[in-house]
Amino acid sequence: MTASWIGCDWGTSNLRLWAMDAEGRVLEERQSENGMGRLQPGAFEAALLELASEFLPASGTMPVVICGMAGARQGWREAPYLPVPCTPAAHGAVHVPTADPRLSVHILPGLSQADPADVMRGEETQIAGVLREDPGFDGVLCLPGTHVKWARVAGGQVQGFATSMTGELFALLADQSVLRHSVGAGWNDDAFDAAVHDALADPAGWVSRLFPLRAEALLGDPAPGVARSRLSGGLIGAELAAMRGIWQDRPVGIVGADALSDLYARALRQEGTTVTRNDAREMTLSGLRTAHAALSEVTS
Amino acid sequence: MTASWIGCDWGTSNLRLWAMDAEGRVLEERQSENGMGRLQPGAFEAALLELASEFLPASGTMPVVICGMAGARQGWREAPYLPVPCTPAAHGAVHVPTADPRLSVHILPGLSQADPADVMRGEETQIAGVLREDPGFDGVLCLPGTHVKWARVAGGQVQGFATSMTGELFALLADQSVLRHSVGAGWNDDAFDAAVHDALADPAGWVSRLFPLRAEALLGDPAPGVARSRLSGGLIGAELAAMRGIWQDRPVGIVGADALSDLYARALRQEGTTVTRNDAREMTLSGLRTAHAALSEVTS
Repeated sequence: MTASWIGCDWGTSNLRLWAMDAEGRVLEERQSENGMGRLQPGAFEAALLELASEFLPASGTMPVVICGMAGARQGWREAPYLPVPCTPAAHGAVHVPTADPRLSVHILPGLSQADPADVMRGEETQIAGVLREDPGFDGVLCLPGTHVKWARVAGGQVQGFATSMTGELFALLADQSVLRHSVGAGWNDDAFDAAVHDALADPAGWVSRLFPLRAEALLGDPAPGVARSRLSGGLIGAELAAMRGIWQDRPVGIVGADALSDLYARALRQEGTTVTRNDAREMTLSGLRTAHAALSEVTS
Repeated sequence: MTASWIGCDWGTSNLRLWAMDAEGRVLEERQSENGMGRLQPGAFEAALLELASEFLPASGTMPVVICGMAGARQGWREAPYLPVPCTPAAHGAVHVPTADPRLSVHILPGLSQADPADVMRGEETQIAGVLREDPGFDGVLCLPGTHVKWARVAGGQVQGFATSMTGELFALLADQSVLRHSVGAGWNDDAFDAAVHDALADPAGWVSRLFPLRAEALLGDPAPGVARSRLSGGLIGAELAAMRGIWQDRPVGIVGADALSDLYARALRQEGTTVTRNDAREMTLSGLRTAHAALSEVTS
C-alpha cells in the first residue's frame, strides 16, 4: 500500500505520525520523542524525515498535515492563532518551506479568544474530529489534560473556550508541595465524590481545604488513597464550579479515554450532566482528515 | 551582662537564638542555618550549643525555651499539639534531656484543631506575643507566609484557626508552572487591587483566571509586573474569600512587617476591614517571654 498523505500530531513532548491512504485510513503509525520542546527551528525537518522518509515517493510530493505545538512561535514555523468563533482545522494552515522537495508541509493554526484571553493549539484538531463525526454537535467539549480545555461548540464552530490548569496544579501540589508527604498512592472513589460535591457546594472555600489534607495525616491515620482522591476531587470540583457557565444545561462530550477522563465523566454525571465519550487519538485523526481535505480543495 | 535565659525560634530552615536578661530584654542575638529540616535528632544539641555555649554559666543550668519545628515528630523531640481552644505558649512544654548538664531545655507545643483538621507550630508563640501586648484582643490574627495562618482569638485563647497554602501556591505557579513564562519581575498596584476585587466578587471563578495570564502574554504585550500582580492578587483574593467566615466584621491583626504582609493589609483594607500590624520577630520574643514565665512558675 502506498501512502497518499501524512498526518502529524506534533506536541511539546512527542511527535506522532500516521501514513494515510487516499481514503484517509491509517496505513502505518510512527512515534518519536522529538517533541517541539527539544527542537531548534532548524531541526524540525530532519525530525520529520526520520519518521516519514520510508513513506515518501520516488518522485512527486507528499502532503504532510501537522497540528500542535510545531506551529507555536518557538516551533518550526508560526501558524498564527485563528480568533473564535471559527470552524476548526478548515483554514489558516501555514505552508512550511522544506529543503527536501518531496515534502509539502502545512501546519494548522491554533485558536485564540480575546476576552477572556485564551489560546489552544492541537485541541482544535480534536474538536474538528468530533465535528466530522457529528457535524450538528451543539454542546460543550471537555478535553482533560495538563491544561484542560472547555469549548462551546455549535453551528459547526467553536464559539468560545476556556482553559483550566487543573492537571498541572494537581501535579505541583501532589508531587512538590507540602502535601507530597500526605498524598500517597491508592484511590478512594467515595473520597473523590465527596470532594467534588464539597467543592461544588462551596467553591469559594476550596483553598481552605488543601492544608487539612496534610493536617489529617499528622493528626490521624487516613486510609490509603483518601488524600490523593480528595485533592483530585477538590481540584476537579473547583474547576467544574469555575466552568459552570459553559457546561451547565448542555450535553458534554469528553475527548479522552484515559483514567483522568473517567474522573471528569464521573464528576459531571454526578451533577446530572449527559456525558458522551470520544477517543482522543481517533478525534485527532478525524480532524487531520478534515484539514487534509480542506487543503486539497484549496490547492487542487 | 549575664544571660538569665535563652529563647529560640527553631524553624525548618533556620535557628534563631536570643540571650535574654532577667527582665526579658534581648542581650544578644545569634542565627544559624541549622534548621530542623537538615538535622537528625542526635544533632540538635550540638547545633544549639554552637550558638548558645558562649552564654552558658560556669556552673548551674541555663533555661532554654524553644518554639517551632524542633518540636515536630521529625524534630529534636516531639511536643504534642495542644487542641484548641487553648491559651498559647502557656503550658504543655516538653522537657528535653541533654548530655550537657548546663542546659535545661523545653520545647513548646504547637496547636491542633480536629475539624477542619489543622495544625500550627511556631505561630502559636507569635499569637501569645500579641496577647502579652494586648491581653484583651478580640479579633483575628493573620500570619502571612508560605502557609498563612488565620486564628480567631478571644478571651486570651485561640478559639480556632485555618491554614491557607497561598504562599506555596504562588511560588509553584510563578516559578514552576507554564505561567513562569509570563510572570516576570515588576509590580503593578492597580492590577493587584483589581485581581483581589475580581476574586472576591467571583471566588468560584478564580481557577479560570490563571491560564489567561499566559494567554495574554501570547496574544498581547502586557505591561511589566501585571501578570505577577494579578497572580498574587487573585490568590490572596481567593484566600480572603475562603477565610471570610473568620475575618468578616472583626478587626484583623497582621503579624508581619514584610512586603507580603503589606499586600494582606492592602487587600483587607480594600474590603473595609480594620487592620493593625505587629512585627513578627517582636511577637516571637514576647511569646517566648510568656512561655519562660510560665515554665519558671511551674519549676519554681
